[in-house]
Amino acid sequence: MPAINTQLEIIRRGCDELLIEDELKDKLKAQRPLRVKAGFDPTAPDLHLGHTVLINKLRQLQKLGHHILFLIGDFTGMIGDPSGKNATRPPLSREEVARNARTYTEQVFKILDRDRTEVVFNSAWMDRMNAADLIRLAAKHTVARMLERDDFHKRYRGNQPIAIHEFLYPLVQGYDSVALKADLELGGTDQKFNLLMGREVQKEYGQPPQVILTMPLLEGLHGVDKMSKSLGNYVGINEPPQEVFGKLMSISDELMWRYIELLSFESLETIRKWKAEVAQGRNPRDIKVAFAQEIVTRFHGASAAAAALADFEARFRQGEVPEDIPEFSIAADADGVAISQVLKRAGLTASTSEALRMVEQGGVKLDGEKVSDKMLRLAKGKTAVVQVGKRKFARVTIA
Amino acid sequence: MPAINTQLEIIRRGCDELLIEDELKDKLKAQRPLRVKAGFDPTAPDLHLGHTVLINKLRQLQKLGHHILFLIGDFTGMIGDPSGKNATRPPLSREEVARNARTYTEQVFKILDRDRTEVVFNSAWMDRMNAADLIRLAAKHTVARMLERDDFHKRYRGNQPIAIHEFLYPLVQGYDSVALKADLELGGTDQKFNLLMGREVQKEYGQPPQVILTMPLLEGLHGVDKMSKSLGNYVGINEPPQEVFGKLMSISDELMWRYIELLSFESLETIRKWKAEVAQGRNPRDIKVAFAQEIVTRFHGASAAAAALADFEARFRQGEVPEDIPEFSIAADADGVAISQVLKRAGLTASTSEALRMVEQGGVKLDGEKVSDKMLRLAKGKTAVVQVGKRKFARVTIA
Repeated sequence: MPAINTQLEIIRRGCDELLIEDELKDKLKAQRPLRVKAGFDPTAPDLHLGHTVLINKLRQLQKLGHHILFLIGDFTGMIGDPSGKNATRPPLSREEVARNARTYTEQVFKILDRDRTEVVFNSAWMDRMNAADLIRLAAKHTVARMLERDDFHKRYRGNQPIAIHEFLYPLVQGYDSVALKADLELGGTDQKFNLLMGREVQKEYGQPPQVILTMPLLEGLHGVDKMSKSLGNYVGINEPPQEVFGKLMSISDELMWRYIELLSFESLETIRKWKAEVAQGRNPRDIKVAFAQEIVTRFHGASAAAAALADFEARFRQGEVPEDIPEFSIAADADGVAISQVLKRAGLTASTSEALRMVEQGGVKLDGEKVSDKMLRLAKGKTAVVQVGKRKFARVTIA
Repeated sequence: MPAINTQLEIIRRGCDELLIEDELKDKLKAQRPLRVKAGFDPTAPDLHLGHTVLINKLRQLQKLGHHILFLIGDFTGMIGDPSGKNATRPPLSREEVARNARTYTEQVFKILDRDRTEVVFNSAWMDRMNAADLIRLAAKHTVARMLERDDFHKRYRGNQPIAIHEFLYPLVQGYDSVALKADLELGGTDQKFNLLMGREVQKEYGQPPQVILTMPLLEGLHGVDKMSKSLGNYVGINEPPQEVFGKLMSISDELMWRYIELLSFESLETIRKWKAEVAQGRNPRDIKVAFAQEIVTRFHGASAAAAALADFEARFRQGEVPEDIPEFSIAADADGVAISQVLKRAGLTASTSEALRMVEQGGVKLDGEKVSDKMLRLAKGKTAVVQVGKRKFARVTIA
């Protein structure tokens, strides 16, 4: 295993908080593989780059020789949303959990070494826990402490209901750390309270408390909101190579360094060298291409990455409208169709509100001319090429 | 079964709240024995008359032909106080629970018909409940609703810790009503929240909600605080017949009617008749004697009651100091002993603060003279008869 300080530098890279660093040093001194826990929902999302920030950190720890426990929280998934408030979360069957876990890990093993990752399910121990055990666990923790958790506090103050079982889930998550004898748990910054709970529960069970490491939420492509599917500012790891490449080329130079810190597997030395070169006049675009190539290669392989680069250069460096763009026929009222509707229906924006925002930001063109009036309506019979940003095109006919 | 209105009058006698009376009428209309639940701690106290208020109500329901479910909450008793805050509540073993239950029911069956009372233990169903079931149960209830419970509310506002499992116990108690298919649950006024919880949990499990009946806390002998062992204002059902009789004769005429309502098995007609007679000039003392005789007979039999009456009359109607009074030698400092210490050490009061209160209230005599100075000290060498109230005497020597 590398020297402790080298390990610490790698572990700290891009992280939000590491608690408690001295405890981590002591654990590393023992020169044994740490048991590293990270918990995931069994709902099997299509992963985007935001999700991979945490998985990349697991990969770094794996490369350092530590033992990765990829925990799928199927126990709670099989309970579903018992408050009945969320109709979209029915209880999952054991088969659905297994299928979801497969979908999940298939994506994850593009980053982690499949042979050195232990996939565990918390139903293995939680199914055996009885009501009395859970009551004993709940008895060690107070309502007031639970209401300190940021989201609970806000909901309680705001008279939004909190179901009592929501107080039990952090305890279950904490108990998972006991069952796994975790040395280190990773999570998003929003998981800090739950990760700390793991420390408390482990102490109650006579275990040394785990160190916790929180990773920030990755910003979306515009650098403001967090990356999210619903905000349409994401890069899905299963998107076509050209999409991934083009989206990453569209980010600002500033955001690029952030993405490199959290998403690239390049060493810290290489990144320091790149920064020095850019400071001395090198075009950051070169770095961006290298980074975008790295990411496409990771998920689609090297030849797809090369093809994406060639396509990108052909289309955008030469400023041409690509030949092969999708066509839409859009039904109009008597007074035509609003531009925001056109953008949404042609799939160029996720919503009309996003469309209006894009027009306001000057990111929409109609037959090559920038659209400045967000209330613009296209009349019946018109055919035009609409463009959003640098890369999204559609040919629309108003019918 | 008696007519519904007759039943209702008996059921309502002395009660605090009956919710919801119309639902109870509907249940009674079916002319079947109602399943009547009352829950008790498995800690087996020595019962005092305060405890019997509820048991008397069960007896009335039993006499009406309803089915009594005497529930011993051993599931929670076997968990103990898992928060570790209350060292005096270690988990009970199954054997201790059984032993306690026997002590308990031996006392209770002086009131209830043993052959027509079903004693049940909630471990029978709760031991089989797993953590997932409990989570589902907890999910149907909100933190805010639980914090509406009076004692939780006060503790939360007062920054007194509430352990999370305390939120689970009302749900367990509610689930007991499901397991027992209870039609009616009885409890003290302080149990109202928990009894209502039973209604909610039953509805979630598709059962018609139980009716709830709360009984007031019985006032102690002085008519102010509730009856309690620690306040020294109680009548234990296992106290000697003379003690029980004397204590009941010491209560005020006003409190007598309250005790008769809640403790006597005399019919409402008889009690109405007595009240009318007293209004027309009959000495309420006659009624008090009859009532005290009834209670002594209940717990010690008719001959013990007759002997207690004879003893009482011999001692107190004739205004004599009884011959057979206990003697105490009490060690003094150089400046003697305070009267409050004398009373406490001679066992005439439970504490020096009670002693001071009794002096203030003019209830203490020294050799037949009322003591008015609560700071009075008895000098070394003195021997005197001290008296508290009408019936407690001791001969003390200050050594």
